[in-house]
Amino acid sequence: MTKRHIILYIATSLDGYIAKTNGDISWLEDFPTPTEPDNSYDVMYETIDTVIMGRTTYEQVTQELAPNHYPYHDKKTIVVTSKKERSSESITFINEPIVDYLRSLKELPGKNIWIVGGNSVIQPLMEANLIDDYQIATLPIILGEGIPLFRPHHQHFKLVPKSTKLINHIIYQTYIKRA
Amino acid sequence: MTKRHIILYIATSLDGYIAKTNGDISWLEDFPTPTEPDNSYDVMYETIDTVIMGRTTYEQVTQELAPNHYPYHDKKTIVVTSKKERSSESITFINEPIVDYLRSLKELPGKNIWIVGGNSVIQPLMEANLIDDYQIATLPIILGEGIPLFRPHHQHFKLVPKSTKLINHIIYQTYIKRA
Repeated sequence: MTKRHIILYIATSLDGYIAKTNGDISWLEDFPTPTEPDNSYDVMYETIDTVIMGRTTYEQVTQELAPNHYPYHDKKTIVVTSKKERSSESITFINEPIVDYLRSLKELPGKNIWIVGGNSVIQPLMEANLIDDYQIATLPIILGEGIPLFRPHHQHFKLVPKSTKLINHIIYQTYIKRA
Repeated sequence: MTKRHIILYIATSLDGYIAKTNGDISWLEDFPTPTEPDNSYDVMYETIDTVIMGRTTYEQVTQELAPNHYPYHDKKTIVVTSKKERSSESITFINEPIVDYLRSLKELPGKNIWIVGGNSVIQPLMEANLIDDYQIATLPIILGEGIPLFRPHHQHFKLVPKSTKLINHIIYQTYIKRA
């Protein structure tokens, strides 16, 4: 059996920001209604059984983006937090080092793991070279400022490009980590 | 006849830098020898009769990159400079506002015009929305710091994606300006 993969599937602006500095991601929707079918997200979502995100992203999802219907209810959710919080059957709050946690999780049987965001989760995993697949959806907008996907401490970090496609207004780029 | 286009054909790192802060672009070559034929550059070069670049880029080309053989000898060269310099038959030094100059040049008959770099030329032309075609070659390396292709003053500037392709280790993205 192939080992489960850790996937970063994320949208960025053309200048590489995943959100405005204030966390705003409304620009993601500021484009004409798509005409071509795009199942990129569904295909990725089908391969996973677990989502992982930081506390801020979790709050954004549950309070702003989808207050009435948790979109990942059919997956295990892991929320990385600095507080002590009570986990439930479907949501696990962890406040231990994310890299060690995911290294162990990856050894357990299961499907892929999707890093939803934000930077507090992405950065340490990238630094530890624990992300197997990078699926970057670039939107054709220059934001001018925001929270960058890539940070200075990734200096001269290389990836291996696998594929690219244009669907509607989005250019998808897929990379895998170097062997 | 179609109007001549102003083309930005440029390589960036995955985190959007066109050079390291010190101007270093040696990382462009820091990849395995290509196996697939890639005629992207030749196809673009065939459509142009003029190259335009800043003084620093011109010096980098003539002193570092190709000291023995000027690579654009078969095209008209325009160098934007803040000094008074004597133009020759093949090289025109201009020290007037680049935007007005190119607006006029575009009205004259001719083939396309390629912006070689650097930022002092790219930025004002982008701001004036004078660039017709953006051909961005992304190399799969995160530099961590450098001279960014896109600057803060392009806030919420949108482009229209046209195509993308992966050849060897390079993902090409083509955008055109909004109507």
